[in-house]
Amino acid sequence: MLIDNEKKAIVLLSGGIDSTTTMAIAKDRGFAIYSLSFSYGQRHAYELKAAESIANYFKVVKHVVINADLRGIGGSALTDNIEVPKARDERIISTEIPVTYVPARNTIFLAYALAWAEVIKSTHIFIGVNAVDYSGYPDCRPEYIEAFERMANLATRAAIEKKTYISIETPLINMSKAQIIKLGIELGVDYAMTHSCYDPSPDGFACGLCDSCLLRKKGFRDAGLKDPARYQV
Amino acid sequence: MLIDNEKKAIVLLSGGIDSTTTMAIAKDRGFAIYSLSFSYGQRHAYELKAAESIANYFKVVKHVVINADLRGIGGSALTDNIEVPKARDERIISTEIPVTYVPARNTIFLAYALAWAEVIKSTHIFIGVNAVDYSGYPDCRPEYIEAFERMANLATRAAIEKKTYISIETPLINMSKAQIIKLGIELGVDYAMTHSCYDPSPDGFACGLCDSCLLRKKGFRDAGLKDPARYQV
Repeated sequence: MLIDNEKKAIVLLSGGIDSTTTMAIAKDRGFAIYSLSFSYGQRHAYELKAAESIANYFKVVKHVVINADLRGIGGSALTDNIEVPKARDERIISTEIPVTYVPARNTIFLAYALAWAEVIKSTHIFIGVNAVDYSGYPDCRPEYIEAFERMANLATRAAIEKKTYISIETPLINMSKAQIIKLGIELGVDYAMTHSCYDPSPDGFACGLCDSCLLRKKGFRDAGLKDPARYQV
Repeated sequence: MLIDNEKKAIVLLSGGIDSTTTMAIAKDRGFAIYSLSFSYGQRHAYELKAAESIANYFKVVKHVVINADLRGIGGSALTDNIEVPKARDERIISTEIPVTYVPARNTIFLAYALAWAEVIKSTHIFIGVNAVDYSGYPDCRPEYIEAFERMANLATRAAIEKKTYISIETPLINMSKAQIIKLGIELGVDYAMTHSCYDPSPDGFACGLCDSCLLRKKGFRDAGLKDPARYQV
């Protein structure tokens, strides 16, 4: 596959299923990839390690980890000392905003991506948001993404100089987890590299019971595929 | 003056003239103030010290400093080792985008403010952007601020639950530097506390020649007032 080094994309990479599949899609479309991960809150070690391995696997041009200091602001089980909920009903997971929701997280992540896009002259920012399995998250909805894109195109030098258009790419937004996994496998993703759990054990085993583990397991089950993640239960 | 503790505002506070005057305006309107500063790039020490003094002076409820790691992304004289331009013509300062422009800076700052606003249930975010003296900055224009506000109202729990509206307040956007200074003095601002210089000496004296110093000096001159800043030249 030919990579066009003039066709640069930023990919937001958490190290989970969705962002890794998004990376594979961006790569498949021939972009030279600049991946961006964020260190925030308590449980970043395994995610960041997964993100780094995935960045290497996909031969990105550059992988940057930003220390996004969300603990100063608080308000989430993922950044504060609030307990991560376990073994919730799947119907509740997909409709309610959970305590693991991080306020304005995608806005902060996309803002950094926009800054980097302006520096490297990239016009495409890929984010693996999904409005199907995470319908409770305000910043995963198409209307939010469209509003961010509109704002982004007024925020930069390029907007003033009217030379380029920044596109926020959300290839997974209307896909189910099972569809995402099947597409990723077609594109050569090894999901053993990915990390989804909100609350892993000290040796990196997934809890198997948090919302993220439950959605992952359901995705593999619905796809009729074996989940390569290492679970405690 | 009565402070309504239910009426909370986030104020983005750099420690310069504009953000300090914005703080005074928010205070004058009776808001309980939550001030937010950012540590980024090389020259944060004097700015952050000024911001902290100003936060104390205005008796804010809480002052938070976020480590916004912009050096990983680069692209500005304020975060990279690019020379800060000196003694430029004032007409050029007010129309060109300078090398001191930090890509997507206001978008990143407002994104953090939005996150904090959601956590503390504040509906007002004050930012001291100015489209007169900084017309070269894309993210200081009214159309940018409006687009950010629109996006913000789709980004949060409140947007989903339809209970509140987030307002981005830009009281200085159409004011000249001289008008800003006069208003601040009416509201009790002591501008000796503020720091404007992009390139201060190790002992904290302003260079007197960078764009920010030149705009500050011109502002005091046009207002017919003495600038209390300590200058090297």
